Amino acid sequence: MTTKPSPGNDEPFVDIHELYTEEVRDKEMKPDKYCRIHKDKGQHHIGKNHHHHHNGVKFTRQVSLETGFSVFGNCTKKEERRSKLLTRSGNSFGEFRGAARVTDVRRGEFNLFRTKTTLSRQNSLLPLRKLAEQDVHHHHPPLPQAEEDVDLEVPAGRYFAALQGPELDEVKDSEDILLPKDELWPFLLRFPIGCFGICLGLGSQAILWNTLSTSPATRFLHIPPYPSLALWLLALMTLIVVSFAYILKSAFYLEAVRREYYHPVRGNFFFAPWIASMFLAIAAPPLLTHGPPHPALWCVLMTPVFLLEVKVYGQWLSGGKRRLCMVANPSSHLSVVGNFVGAILAAKVGWEEAGKFFWAVGFAHYLVVFVTLYQRLPTSHVLPKELHPVYSMFITAPGAASVAWEAIYGEFDGMARTCFFVALFLYLTLVVRINFFRGFRFSVAWWSYTFPMTTASVATIKYAEQEPCVLSQGLAVALSALSTAMVSVLLVSTLLHAFIWGSLFPNDYAIAITRHKVGVKGKAKTIRKAANGIKRWTRSSSLALVSSVAKNPFEKDASGGKV
Amino acid sequence: MTTKPSPGNDEPFVDIHELYTEEVRDKEMKPDKYCRIHKDKGQHHIGKNHHHHHNGVKFTRQVSLETGFSVFGNCTKKEERRSKLLTRSGNSFGEFRGAARVTDVRRGEFNLFRTKTTLSRQNSLLPLRKLAEQDVHHHHPPLPQAEEDVDLEVPAGRYFAALQGPELDEVKDSEDILLPKDELWPFLLRFPIGCFGICLGLGSQAILWNTLSTSPATRFLHIPPYPSLALWLLALMTLIVVSFAYILKSAFYLEAVRREYYHPVRGNFFFAPWIASMFLAIAAPPLLTHGPPHPALWCVLMTPVFLLEVKVYGQWLSGGKRRLCMVANPSSHLSVVGNFVGAILAAKVGWEEAGKFFWAVGFAHYLVVFVTLYQRLPTSHVLPKELHPVYSMFITAPGAASVAWEAIYGEFDGMARTCFFVALFLYLTLVVRINFFRGFRFSVAWWSYTFPMTTASVATIKYAEQEPCVLSQGLAVALSALSTAMVSVLLVSTLLHAFIWGSLFPNDYAIAITRHKVGVKGKAKTIRKAANGIKRWTRSSSLALVSSVAKNPFEKDASGGKV
Amino acid sequence: MTTKPSPGNDEPFVDIHELYTEEVRDKEMKPDKYCRIHKDKGQHHIGKNHHHHHNGVKFTRQVSLETGFSVFGNCTKKEERRSKLLTRSGNSFGEFRGAARVTDVRRGEFNLFRTKTTLSRQNSLLPLRKLAEQDVHHHHPPLPQAEEDVDLEVPAGRYFAALQGPELDEVKDSEDILLPKDELWPFLLRFPIGCFGICLGLGSQAILWNTLSTSPATRFLHIPPYPSLALWLLALMTLIVVSFAYILKSAFYLEAVRREYYHPVRGNFFFAPWIASMFLAIAAPPLLTHGPPHPALWCVLMTPVFLLEVKVYGQWLSGGKRRLCMVANPSSHLSVVGNFVGAILAAKVGWEEAGKFFWAVGFAHYLVVFVTLYQRLPTSHVLPKELHPVYSMFITAPGAASVAWEAIYGEFDGMARTCFFVALFLYLTLVVRINFFRGFRFSVAWWSYTFPMTTASVATIKYAEQEPCVLSQGLAVALSALSTAMVSVLLVSTLLHAFIWGSLFPNDYAIAITRHKVGVKGKAKTIRKAANGIKRWTRSSSLALVSSVAKNPFEKDASGGKV
Repeated sequence: MTTKPSPGNDEPFVDIHELYTEEVRDKEMKPDKYCRIHKDKGQHHIGKNHHHHHNGVKFTRQVSLETGFSVFGNCTKKEERRSKLLTRSGNSFGEFRGAARVTDVRRGEFNLFRTKTTLSRQNSLLPLRKLAEQDVHHHHPPLPQAEEDVDLEVPAGRYFAALQGPELDEVKDSEDILLPKDELWPFLLRFPIGCFGICLGLGSQAILWNTLSTSPATRFLHIPPYPSLALWLLALMTLIVVSFAYILKSAFYLEAVRREYYHPVRGNFFFAPWIASMFLAIAAPPLLTHGPPHPALWCVLMTPVFLLEVKVYGQWLSGGKRRLCMVANPSSHLSVVGNFVGAILAAKVGWEEAGKFFWAVGFAHYLVVFVTLYQRLPTSHVLPKELHPVYSMFITAPGAASVAWEAIYGEFDGMARTCFFVALFLYLTLVVRINFFRGFRFSVAWWSYTFPMTTASVATIKYAEQEPCVLSQGLAVALSALSTAMVSVLLVSTLLHAFIWGSLFPNDYAIAITRHKVGVKGKAKTIRKAANGIKRWTRSSSLALVSSVAKNPFEKDASGGKV
Repeated sequence: MTTKPSPGNDEPFVDIHELYTEEVRDKEMKPDKYCRIHKDKGQHHIGKNHHHHHNGVKFTRQVSLETGFSVFGNCTKKEERRSKLLTRSGNSFGEFRGAARVTDVRRGEFNLFRTKTTLSRQNSLLPLRKLAEQDVHHHHPPLPQAEEDVDLEVPAGRYFAALQGPELDEVKDSEDILLPKDELWPFLLRFPIGCFGICLGLGSQAILWNTLSTSPATRFLHIPPYPSLALWLLALMTLIVVSFAYILKSAFYLEAVRREYYHPVRGNFFFAPWIASMFLAIAAPPLLTHGPPHPALWCVLMTPVFLLEVKVYGQWLSGGKRRLCMVANPSSHLSVVGNFVGAILAAKVGWEEAGKFFWAVGFAHYLVVFVTLYQRLPTSHVLPKELHPVYSMFITAPGAASVAWEAIYGEFDGMARTCFFVALFLYLTLVVRINFFRGFRFSVAWWSYTFPMTTASVATIKYAEQEPCVLSQGLAVALSALSTAMVSVLLVSTLLHAFIWGSLFPNDYAIAITRHKVGVKGKAKTIRKAANGIKRWTRSSSLALVSSVAKNPFEKDASGGKV
Repeated sequence: MTTKPSPGNDEPFVDIHELYTEEVRDKEMKPDKYCRIHKDKGQHHIGKNHHHHHNGVKFTRQVSLETGFSVFGNCTKKEERRSKLLTRSGNSFGEFRGAARVTDVRRGEFNLFRTKTTLSRQNSLLPLRKLAEQDVHHHHPPLPQAEEDVDLEVPAGRYFAALQGPELDEVKDSEDILLPKDELWPFLLRFPIGCFGICLGLGSQAILWNTLSTSPATRFLHIPPYPSLALWLLALMTLIVVSFAYILKSAFYLEAVRREYYHPVRGNFFFAPWIASMFLAIAAPPLLTHGPPHPALWCVLMTPVFLLEVKVYGQWLSGGKRRLCMVANPSSHLSVVGNFVGAILAAKVGWEEAGKFFWAVGFAHYLVVFVTLYQRLPTSHVLPKELHPVYSMFITAPGAASVAWEAIYGEFDGMARTCFFVALFLYLTLVVRINFFRGFRFSVAWWSYTFPMTTASVATIKYAEQEPCVLSQGLAVALSALSTAMVSVLLVSTLLHAFIWGSLFPNDYAIAITRHKVGVKGKAKTIRKAANGIKRWTRSSSLALVSSVAKNPFEKDASGGKV
């Protein structure tokens, strides 16, 4: 992920497909002239950098100007060029490190993801740069494309096509990205929405400890209210910090935020801030607050949840790439669980009917999500092939539904029990497969997988209140201990990663994918077409070359050297 | 289903594609000779009309002779003919308007959809016609195929292939239909089953106003019972009129009714008459009736619903083109909601247990339909890509389920509330997307989209009875007002369309699709086959003509005028 | 299945595709030479039998050595050979009937399915045979493949690819199997897991008669407890016998058991023994037992069910060929119904909470299975196209859920009624389609289709207890009579098949499918590889042969003899 650019071939990352297509096309037309022009002009230009004019040479897609230059400039040095063609464009910026305008260039890149007003303000401070850009634009229309690439909404299909992994957070090898891979991006760009998972984890812990200290079922543990208070304060602090950081991100890199919002998995995490806030409202320590929270708080917190729901469920229902059978994945439970948490809070502020409304909405959609995920439709692009921590999300909705039903209807009846037992069974199913949870790289996303466990613990305590016996109380204590242990481990890991190793926030490649894939296939087709149409190639031995390339799209460099 | 084969020619129904195929085949082989023969014979025949003999010329499938003649007659004028071949058969009849037998011809066409007994009686009154028919048959056996086309059940796949739109009521451009497109069909053929939607809309309004005037939750409105009575009488009258018209249609154009029955969307509307009747039974005004309705009424109305259900759900479950993942569409809710309405009526007549039976059946299938629709499986051919008024159907089932549960179990408990709130949420989701409801052409189908709103209003009133507060009562009044306004607008629109503009019942193309697609592909195959087998057609220049026509199958009428 | 053997060709079962194809190709190429070679070499080998050395001859797939010999040995008698080549490899053993080692040979084949320890013990007693095998192995590495074929788990996809029918118990025509088709296999190999269906049928009958004799709703029938006792004893005996037989099968033919376990339909039947046992525990006649059964019994019986569930539901959820949208079929209800039966027994032993747990688990998964089956996703390979007795499984889960809910929550409320009515409706739906149930060949699997009827009868009696009226009691009696009649018919049929006709256990081809389809394609690939790699083949005329083999995958041995 962070190879240093090799010298004398300083573009380690090239999008072969792209340039290749270009080149093949040009060459087909006028191979000799092409190379001559490049020798004449390209060499010339490499000095001037921003002022080269190529007649008849069009860049259909080019991530950065520099990348383009690197190609022209090296036409003569065939050997070097071969290796260069194999590199990936993202890193091609590396070779300009020594240049004076590198900083500008790079800032420009990150600007792609900047909020537009911010950007224009900045631009007005850089008249020189703007001039240069205008100059460049005149001859090279593709540059704005990169910006357009960011401005326009990335189609849902692209996320599926370009990303992989159960959280769709890894860029496929065949994909290019818009930002440099070899350096650390600005902190805000690396700060994912998933960080609210920390707030979820800590907030649910605060609820758990609050419940442990107050529930009659666990009274025998004699847990004082202070751990709960401490956890609550920690969770509150974390929520404030994370929110502040993300608000900053929204302010400065709105495009990056938009891309996270449209991300099929991360989109669900936009529910997290509100759920975490509701956790804090539910866990409000009696030492600090007097009486139940005011209904206005509920309104404030549920309004965004409701609006997001209308949006998300509408996307599920209406056709398109974001319909449910496409995007369903364990994180979708986050879109559903907000309803149950909202119902619990509604019961707390005394608005049971509103709670029942959200419970019903949540349950109906939970049913759909549950069935859809269980069916594992082949249309679902996101569902991980193998079991993965993300599956713990399965526990959260039934657990929360159970607690919420008890809160709003006042009894732990058949419905609440059914939900609770379903959660318990899913928990057991996952615990049995514990080995699936090992061997994964730590990331902030792990936090999101702790709050289902905590929810299940709280539900178990509620159940133990109804059916006080050794087994239920033992189970409640055991699950609570397990979830607390899990959160502790994560807390320590997070602190270590954050402050000791400084590796908590790696580059967030998932937001930097390009809007359109330029694939191998398209290229092969182009080549074949060309092969049919143009005669002048037939005599030379290059024909064999071309056809071989057609079959073998990743080795054109071998041939490139010969032309 | 009917008719004895065809006569001479009075078989107006032509599948141009077919004829075309034939002809193309012939011409390819021996264009000159072919053309000569046609000049000699065809021209000759065009006068005699019913007595032409072509040696060696076979019409494998030909819907009407006239069309055929129009083709033959123009064999010399190649330019004109080319354009003629491009026209659509439906319109080609137009050119015979002046002829004496046009009326007969056209009646013959519509006869395709006639009930068999009716038709045969008619035929017996037309001995001449029959004779002529026999004559033609002697030489042209394929002709009856058009009739067979109507006789046999149209496979479900054809509806999906030939129709489009969220209600599958628009014929795709590439499709031909069996009836003329340029004139108004007989009224009964244009009278769709969807008209029962009017009865649904008015009947549910009657219930709504009945509830408004009697419910304690809306007592503060002081609504007199007369609006309800007026609506009930209006709904009753409409139901009688619509039923009478549809019974006439069944009597005279049974084939058209069968085609509506097998239509994946319209099939669901066969539940509508019974649901509308039950609405009237439920809304029976106390001013006219004494005590609850007799259980026999319930039996009479639920029996057809039950039989239809056994049939429809069986089709969902058993394999084939009508299985649920294929046909699921918002109209499927109509197949389900009958159970809930039946349950309400059952509670009214005092048969709670029967109501519970139907509620259970309805709920189980509603669950399946809900999940299936929400998933938007790619296998579903009918689900509209974009949101559409038809989505309002989503509200109807949970709303009715909620009211029914309260009616049969006597309490508005968790289950009823959950159903009600789900309906309310779906309502809100659709209201938020109000702009999706604008810009659609008015049609009778719109009526079907009002009764879900009314159902939701009734459910809200029931809810407001349980939870009397400003919000719930205000919501009840608001939703009632909204649904009444909607119905009023539709009522006025319908009256305007019906009596002022006379555009309420356009031609119902959806029932006139052909049983088999005669695509360009199939033709090409046929041609190729012929080309291999027959030698004598090979010489002429018409070949080019023919092949050009093959690409452009849709404009033969332009040519029609020239004969 | 029982074509009369043709004379002079004692292999009644022929798979024409296989051997025949090979030969025809060979002969076409070099008929004379080909046959000569075989006369020279093949004849020679037929004497030595186990000691032939073919250099460079590779058997890519060969079911047994004998099969190969049968081919070699008969090269001279062309007429005979042709017909023999038409046979299926499995059957070619027939011709060695007279030979001394036939028995050994055959035992070797069945050994493929033997438990390994058993096998190795046997092998140690057969040093000679082992030597011969080693000899053979030296030159013919592929032989062990047959064994490996059995050892390794058959991938789920293979079952779908090689088998057909609603129970996936018929081998497709294009498939070869590992065991001979023309003779009766050892009894244990023919004893399918489906036999536990008999125990299910009888056990549920015992419950039914127990309920009939004790329920207040059917007191008017004055049924004595003796029929219930007799049925219980019969069911107990059957369970013991069947269990004993299947334990023997597990001991001797573990591989066959494993193949049944991985079979997508039969895997569900591994729940049957435990469910049948629970039936017996529930129906324990008061004449024999005192008080309710001990909770330990419940633990013993539910533990395997729970473990199987964790396994099966895990497979549904996790990706792969066994995920739900692939394997869902009516038999999947068996995986679910164990929970409800377990819940009933839990209520009986006094562990209501445990019962609620299993009820919740069962209900959640029943919902998923129900929706999935109703949707009839095109991805489901197993769901029979047409209705079939297996559909009666649909009744069992809601019926059992209803009874279980009443048992654990103590009231026949909305939930229990909803489940019951759903079961009743599904029952009616199937009864209406009664003709779908005729015309099927009797098999042991039919028994599995009786217990849903019995479950529905029991649920109806429970319902009649709650709503005693003529209709409900009449329905209870009618359904009970129907299910008892069905079981009686099956009992007589089974006895007749078992003891009179001896046709109860035909060869169980479903377990003997090969692990990999040796299709034409795969062969072609192998050949191409070979063609590229090996030079020494190029000069000889065998090349043509080789390429011909490419088309004809099953007789490489024929060529093998020549090298």
